[in-house]
Amino acid sequence: MRILRKLWRRYWLNIREYHYCNIFPSAKIGRNVVIGSYVEIGDGVEIGNNCKIEAQVFIPKGVTIEDDVFIGPCVHFTNDKYPKAKGEWKIWPTLVRQGASIGAGVTVRCGVIIGRNSGVGAGSVVLHDIPDNQIWAGNPARRIDSNWNGKV
Amino acid sequence: MRILRKLWRRYWLNIREYHYCNIFPSAKIGRNVVIGSYVEIGDGVEIGNNCKIEAQVFIPKGVTIEDDVFIGPCVHFTNDKYPKAKGEWKIWPTLVRQGASIGAGVTVRCGVIIGRNSGVGAGSVVLHDIPDNQIWAGNPARRIDSNWNGKV
Amino acid sequence: MRILRKLWRRYWLNIREYHYCNIFPSAKIGRNVVIGSYVEIGDGVEIGNNCKIEAQVFIPKGVTIEDDVFIGPCVHFTNDKYPKAKGEWKIWPTLVRQGASIGAGVTVRCGVIIGRNSGVGAGSVVLHDIPDNQIWAGNPARRIDSNWNGKV
Repeated sequence: MRILRKLWRRYWLNIREYHYCNIFPSAKIGRNVVIGSYVEIGDGVEIGNNCKIEAQVFIPKGVTIEDDVFIGPCVHFTNDKYPKAKGEWKIWPTLVRQGASIGAGVTVRCGVIIGRNSGVGAGSVVLHDIPDNQIWAGNPARRIDSNWNGKV
Repeated sequence: MRILRKLWRRYWLNIREYHYCNIFPSAKIGRNVVIGSYVEIGDGVEIGNNCKIEAQVFIPKGVTIEDDVFIGPCVHFTNDKYPKAKGEWKIWPTLVRQGASIGAGVTVRCGVIIGRNSGVGAGSVVLHDIPDNQIWAGNPARRIDSNWNGKV
Repeated sequence: MRILRKLWRRYWLNIREYHYCNIFPSAKIGRNVVIGSYVEIGDGVEIGNNCKIEAQVFIPKGVTIEDDVFIGPCVHFTNDKYPKAKGEWKIWPTLVRQGASIGAGVTVRCGVIIGRNSGVGAGSVVLHDIPDNQIWAGNPARRIDSNWNGKV
């Protein structure tokens, strides 16, 4: 069953998965996605088409990623604002809009929206919503520039 | 032998281990602990009961974790203040007290104590001891609030 | 073929590899190197002799590491300044000079040089070149001390 799912992802959806990934069966992943090694994609996560997810990324339940998003190595999302080992907990949803780029080692607090074509600098900690077409960086992340797309 | 240890952890201690964990045989782990994928728990580490350890956590030799502790994804502890590739090295012990919660992507410098029921915000870098019942965040982590427990 | 490469690394080069590593065949690794669990070493990376690389490190194409370098757990290098999911991209090379020590959880932006015997504090984000024999820390990393080597 697991093998069949893997083949379906590989040949039908054209998803390139590297070593030791852990993708929950209920995760919905689009076409032409690249997924690096040691990535965990949790229960019910939705990922759009043409995304590139680097190694060691952690995406738990409650996160939605739209099309054409880049996620750098060691980026980790969260889904609980006040986590505890015991007791009830609720999920704060997180949304990454189309075309956004998240740099290496970024921590994204749950409940935020990262806007279209925006960029997050490496090593940042995102605590607030990021509007479209802006570049944010730092701990906590603040706006440092606009028009990320112009730079190559 | 490895399989037996795994079965013992699973059915006797009720430890739920996800994929690709690497737990050293000399680590002492309590009951009802959840351990996420890609977690490395080093030589001689002690972990209490009812802890929840998320994916991609690194816990080296010298770290002690008491009961009911939450450790978010990609948290990494250290055990050497001035690490070098060559030569002698000594271990600075680190202690996480009962009921503490450590957010995603936190780096904990060796030699600190994280107090009872205290919380560390996501993406922080802990360089100093954290007293009981306080919330710390930032790089380096500073006190930002008290009474983490009241918030849910 | 993969097994042969592994044996060659183990017994000829004396490389100690832990579990679930992912080392690209084109990576050139020196003698007496220790490589922790969950480490990905990418295409064409060069690593010198006597290095110690801790768990969960990500080293992509374009990075060169000289001899006697310590790399702490969860350090991630990058190779593209303005990453995007689609389109062309170029590689900015990164160099870590002989004897440097990089602390746990550090993010290194591409295109920098980390100097001889310098040190980077845990949890830092390196955006600029670091001269020889200095200690840098913070986000972004700044000089906090000199003469790392004197401290043990």
